Amino acid sequence: VAGFTEDELLEVIRRLLAEDAPGVMLGLGDDAALVEMGSHLGILTADMMVEGVHFDRGTVSASDLGYKALAVNVSDVAAMGGSPRYGLVSLGLPEDIEASWVVELYGGLRDAAGEYAMAVVGGDTSRAERLVVSVAVTGEVARGGAVTRSGARPGDRVVVTGALGASAGGLKLLQAPPHDVVQTVSSDWGRTLLNSHLRPAARVGEGQTLAQSGATAMMDVSDGLAKDLGRLCEASEVRAAVVLDDVPVALSLKELADVLPDVEPLALALEGGEDYELLATLPPTAVRRAASKLAERFGTQLTDIGEIREGRGLVAIESDGKERPLEPRGWDHFSG
Amino acid sequence: VAGFTEDELLEVIRRLLAEDAPGVMLGLGDDAALVEMGSHLGILTADMMVEGVHFDRGTVSASDLGYKALAVNVSDVAAMGGSPRYGLVSLGLPEDIEASWVVELYGGLRDAAGEYAMAVVGGDTSRAERLVVSVAVTGEVARGGAVTRSGARPGDRVVVTGALGASAGGLKLLQAPPHDVVQTVSSDWGRTLLNSHLRPAARVGEGQTLAQSGATAMMDVSDGLAKDLGRLCEASEVRAAVVLDDVPVALSLKELADVLPDVEPLALALEGGEDYELLATLPPTAVRRAASKLAERFGTQLTDIGEIREGRGLVAIESDGKERPLEPRGWDHFSG
Repeated sequence: VAGFTEDELLEVIRRLLAEDAPGVMLGLGDDAALVEMGSHLGILTADMMVEGVHFDRGTVSASDLGYKALAVNVSDVAAMGGSPRYGLVSLGLPEDIEASWVVELYGGLRDAAGEYAMAVVGGDTSRAERLVVSVAVTGEVARGGAVTRSGARPGDRVVVTGALGASAGGLKLLQAPPHDVVQTVSSDWGRTLLNSHLRPAARVGEGQTLAQSGATAMMDVSDGLAKDLGRLCEASEVRAAVVLDDVPVALSLKELADVLPDVEPLALALEGGEDYELLATLPPTAVRRAASKLAERFGTQLTDIGEIREGRGLVAIESDGKERPLEPRGWDHFSG
Repeated sequence: VAGFTEDELLEVIRRLLAEDAPGVMLGLGDDAALVEMGSHLGILTADMMVEGVHFDRGTVSASDLGYKALAVNVSDVAAMGGSPRYGLVSLGLPEDIEASWVVELYGGLRDAAGEYAMAVVGGDTSRAERLVVSVAVTGEVARGGAVTRSGARPGDRVVVTGALGASAGGLKLLQAPPHDVVQTVSSDWGRTLLNSHLRPAARVGEGQTLAQSGATAMMDVSDGLAKDLGRLCEASEVRAAVVLDDVPVALSLKELADVLPDVEPLALALEGGEDYELLATLPPTAVRRAASKLAERFGTQLTDIGEIREGRGLVAIESDGKERPLEPRGWDHFSG
């Protein structure tokens, strides 16, 4: 869009859509919308993947694409503390697509639906010049159980599940010259990075446990830690300080950096997108208990990476204790 | 898709997606999916509009496009006898799109949301080479109140709301040489045709009334009467006989045929798509009462156009009483 970033465009759209419609608890601007739906709250989210922007058919299989298209929506439901229920999948298909490719795509969708105990129930198909996969997912959460981006308070700790940067590392690998890729796909660390990018895991159980553990704000890391934490701070009207040494950098990125010298692991962890880990804020007293529950129930690490302060914006705390502004940079679907 | 019609592709997808997932009452293959959702049944539907396939930016305003993108989904909810509740809108936007265009599009979405007492609560935006508008809508219907395509029984009458072919006539007008368009846009009938194509009305109240009147099967006419009635018959495993003289042809098509000699009003009524009128089957004793309710409550005409018989396929009954096969032809999003 001429002269607009994605965030600016979303802000324009947000202003246009009234949030006071009956039944709407929370509209645009969070991971998902919250609506009245029977005895529970309904969670509604959608995500569009476009060939040439989000993926290339040459480097991703139809099955992985289907899996990921559903998983990234499930991640948005997880980021509200909810459970996914139903999916709708609309496909824009170029004329050269083979039916077997569409069948494989649905195989991946079905894998993900099974993984997250949900069902794909419909959608639409159309011709299109470039491939488009547009998914909408409904989920649910008990009344009072949803966690949005806007509840972080000064004094809260900032926590993140798992490790960051692996998906961006996998993308670098896919875009690397063929001889580098051949070197690495047979290694465990290479496959770990590729898998993080091609079949990301949505943290549904972890999201519910964090919600029950008293998370004051939560979102998934889809556009990079710095950018998404910036959004959380803006929604909560607070400032965050991130201890750079504490950011959990995916271990495989060190091995990637040996093969591809332009890879900086910490930069990928801070600014690489599509990790789909959960970023949350918790009262200080709740962190240890939440971390041990996540380790016990899901084998998932929870890392304390900093604190919420009064003010606005982000700061990075260096190894020597010095603070510097942290730019909320990351993946932008318009400029990126 | 190489060598596949839309119906063939849908059939492949249908076989791939298990319908026995918990909570799924009805999956792919009807106007919308039916799912467990609290005390009501949830209705889920999605529709994708692609530039160059469904519309051209040169002949449709952003506002009309937004209106129609939501209305066609609402029509699918109406065709189940339900009420629309929430919408998700995902946009694929080319780089040359102006922000003002996106604002206008949302203006049209908001108009339609207001018209149908629902709310657009979220979605996604992405870059894309050609414009894509992908909408998902949730709705609801009381348990036992949903009408699918598969309940038509031999002896039922076939009925349709409103008049048919106006939308296809409007499209012909948009594609006609400029001097013909200039002649007609100032006329009432020209504006009626254009409006039917650009801002189609979804028959929400009519769908609920038909459901309450005992409709045994129902769907919206989106791809043309012959094609959609063919689908209804296939889903219900019955045959339909249509009295051609009784098909309600939009009156303005006669005036259009004077200006554009290649226009055949009855052909457009039978095979032109995007009317979004409701096609239903009713027991013979229920037709008169349903028709008077629709006239009284909504000023909408209900026309008896034929009967359901044992067997499969469609027949047309000519003026002289002779019967001939009726091809289920119409709009195909892959070949059309």
